[in-house]
Amino acid sequence: MTTATPQRGLQLRSLMQPDGTLDLALHSVEIAPPKPDEVVVRVEAAPINPSDIGLLFGAADLETVASEGSGAQAKATARVPERALRAMAARMNMALPCGNEGAGTVVAAGSSAAAQALLGKTVATFGGAMYAQYRTAKDDQCLVLPPGCTAADGASCFVNPLTALGMTETMRREGHHALVHTAAASNLGQMLNRICQKDGIALVNIVRKPEQAKLLREAGAKWVCDSSAPTFMSDLTQALVETGATIAFDATGGGKLAGQILACMEAALLQQSKEYSRYGTTTHKQVYLYGGLDTSNTELSRGNLGMAWGIGGWLLTPFLQRIGPHAAQRLRQRVADELKTTFASRYSREISLPEALQRDVILGYCKRATGEKYLINPSRGA
Amino acid sequence: MTTATPQRGLQLRSLMQPDGTLDLALHSVEIAPPKPDEVVVRVEAAPINPSDIGLLFGAADLETVASEGSGAQAKATARVPERALRAMAARMNMALPCGNEGAGTVVAAGSSAAAQALLGKTVATFGGAMYAQYRTAKDDQCLVLPPGCTAADGASCFVNPLTALGMTETMRREGHHALVHTAAASNLGQMLNRICQKDGIALVNIVRKPEQAKLLREAGAKWVCDSSAPTFMSDLTQALVETGATIAFDATGGGKLAGQILACMEAALLQQSKEYSRYGTTTHKQVYLYGGLDTSNTELSRGNLGMAWGIGGWLLTPFLQRIGPHAAQRLRQRVADELKTTFASRYSREISLPEALQRDVILGYCKRATGEKYLINPSRGA
Repeated sequence: MTTATPQRGLQLRSLMQPDGTLDLALHSVEIAPPKPDEVVVRVEAAPINPSDIGLLFGAADLETVASEGSGAQAKATARVPERALRAMAARMNMALPCGNEGAGTVVAAGSSAAAQALLGKTVATFGGAMYAQYRTAKDDQCLVLPPGCTAADGASCFVNPLTALGMTETMRREGHHALVHTAAASNLGQMLNRICQKDGIALVNIVRKPEQAKLLREAGAKWVCDSSAPTFMSDLTQALVETGATIAFDATGGGKLAGQILACMEAALLQQSKEYSRYGTTTHKQVYLYGGLDTSNTELSRGNLGMAWGIGGWLLTPFLQRIGPHAAQRLRQRVADELKTTFASRYSREISLPEALQRDVILGYCKRATGEKYLINPSRGA
Repeated sequence: MTTATPQRGLQLRSLMQPDGTLDLALHSVEIAPPKPDEVVVRVEAAPINPSDIGLLFGAADLETVASEGSGAQAKATARVPERALRAMAARMNMALPCGNEGAGTVVAAGSSAAAQALLGKTVATFGGAMYAQYRTAKDDQCLVLPPGCTAADGASCFVNPLTALGMTETMRREGHHALVHTAAASNLGQMLNRICQKDGIALVNIVRKPEQAKLLREAGAKWVCDSSAPTFMSDLTQALVETGATIAFDATGGGKLAGQILACMEAALLQQSKEYSRYGTTTHKQVYLYGGLDTSNTELSRGNLGMAWGIGGWLLTPFLQRIGPHAAQRLRQRVADELKTTFASRYSREISLPEALQRDVILGYCKRATGEKYLINPSRGA
């Protein structure tokens, strides 16, 4: 039995135009009746993650953001600088739906038993196009939230929790025993701190400000290094000697930080080795760049790295494919089990879809300040 | 039965002093009688590879090289700039023997049958300290040269041949089907070109000068891209579309080249993909830095790389350990079998140990010009 499906719904899309204008608008899209293995979710909570901001605004200059209209007619525009247009060539003229993850109520279900079982349930799902009043999803991509959890509680079930778990999982699979994380006071960083404390993993937290260091120490973090301190390099080396961390996940991507981490890892290893080799130590040191908060070039000074090092991109979806469905399901189950503890997310503001297109609101969520995280509730006010 | 062993021999050593002076001199060292599984090789040919120059001169400023003395008293000094001293801290006050590989005649052997069987034979060996009149080696680290091969023919049996074979082997083991090589007109690059032609592997050769491109084309190379050409980026992208290469070995290390290779690989892949993802293609692209001809920082512009990429150091010895003794032996045997064809090395000049410490000779072999490769014959003129 298929419940009556809503006919149309609003969906936030980002369109890059050849003249360098980026248009964000709410499109009224048709909601097709769900196929047997599909459900239609009324989205009630979808977080704005850094990765979402990347898709929403690309390389646009936020100074140029302008808004017009209200309700379903709300629009925002921004200019992409000439030099950045090439990097956005591949998405030219495509109106891209946004929003990686979210949660809400299943309001229609396909004929399969699995889909029908979800009807009326509060579920979390992911895979894009969540900044929308309705989102059709496969039944097996829905995570039923535990009793007592609201859509807001489960909105961030996937990206941050699975990324954080992906880090400790990658650490183990690649033979490391402790890890380093940058931008460590972020929502994701705090989550990783809780995971590592629970699992007994030594975590070196790198932050940029004393107040972020304080926040993490108050949350029980043992190793916190402030990159704005003049003693940063020796602090980090000491933390690496104590923890033995030889893998790092870097959210910033640009500048010299990744290379500094590798250099400190090598320095820490050299302190413990006796023999000289001009190729450095034989222990492999790895930094994965999983974000690009700093859009400047990544710069490596190789003189102090030795030869046993690697840098590379790290992305959640290919990681989950690599570990296979069983291992991925184990991670998802842990998220559901610890949704209100280890994986709890806090939001500083809940906004509607039209509000997400207002200049002042945009500047707010694009700031990505520590402790500032916005939640879109598409079921509100459009 | 142990043959009479030479009592002492000269050995070239490089000593970094705390005051910033690098001293190169010939040390008279004792030759211990060989243990049962050892032999003593009279070294007759040892090449000067870029990796040897690194150990000989470190971060020294070659402008400051000065020589004095002659014969066994020959010495050379050079200054290491203040800012580079930290990178050489680990080798401070150690008089390091130099010379990664070489060949010569076995003049003494330990009591084991394997060692005795080598007596009088011309063998190649490696592992450092080859710029010496005599070098003690384990019997199983000696490669007996095929009949008709001189020590000079076999002097470069290990570093270049195994590095070149290590590249195609790494390519296969990591799931790639074609490869890119920089500084492709080098002795190593020409060898790799011969291997790839023989094995039917598509190789994209990157050079810096038109005359290097000409040299490779005349040697049958199909894809040659000159990084000094204004069309370099589009030439390289086109070569990558044609070959499908997604792994590169970069001898330069510094500057923007590694990032440019990754960006062109991604551009080539995007030409063949239809769907847009802001994370780029899902095909992993890898650049290994195996040398540091360009000592400036490695700079990556990440905007056009996607997320599926990696950069890392690559070094022969850990590679051989990783593949295990059987696979390594298979590579060594191929080198011996094709020593006068695929793996032939040419030398522009043969010098004695004292000559290797003369300023004008030093400036010659440190130039690393295409086609310039020096061979030290320690059995001559000291």
